[in-house]
Amino acid sequence: MFGLIGKMRAQPGKREELISAIGASTDAMPGCKGYVIAEDLADPDSIWITELWDDEASHKASLQLPEVKAAIAKARPLIAGFDMHVTTRPVAGLTSRPAS
Amino acid sequence: MFGLIGKMRAQPGKREELISAIGASTDAMPGCKGYVIAEDLADPDSIWITELWDDEASHKASLQLPEVKAAIAKARPLIAGFDMHVTTRPVAGLTSRPAS
Repeated sequence: MFGLIGKMRAQPGKREELISAIGASTDAMPGCKGYVIAEDLADPDSIWITELWDDEASHKASLQLPEVKAAIAKARPLIAGFDMHVTTRPVAGLTSRPAS
Repeated sequence: MFGLIGKMRAQPGKREELISAIGASTDAMPGCKGYVIAEDLADPDSIWITELWDDEASHKASLQLPEVKAAIAKARPLIAGFDMHVTTRPVAGLTSRPAS
């Protein structure tokens, strides 16, 4: 397994729009075992994205999907910055049902 | 939904042991919709925990479960520090199958 955890800061007041843009890409990504977008409760412009993939290759391949490219293009102008980005190896736990 | 994302640093060389201690508590927690433990690829002593709960109350209630109390007691001496702890509101995404 391969994982990503990142904090993304939207342009002021644009968080909802950013979530909509990113969330539209998450329906059909081969090798994606989990993808959660969460609002930071302490920072009104920030979101956290936690991703679980079969491996790093499936994550990289997803970036070439037309839906994902379209989502990135739509999201880019709404992003003020990336405050954190870490790669992980998920090793334990459960992800039992849709988060939304 | 209520979420938590945290980075925990194990005592040097104790990451595997810490993961085992924490992972043992994750099987039956009412209201838990996702719980992933992941090794930080860049930091050999750190782990990231991403949690999804029905609400904050279900998370708080879990801390009183005997299995969770036992896991915390076992984990505590293995923890060197908490480098990050944020609360979130998960709003979109998918969590489709067991991560381990």
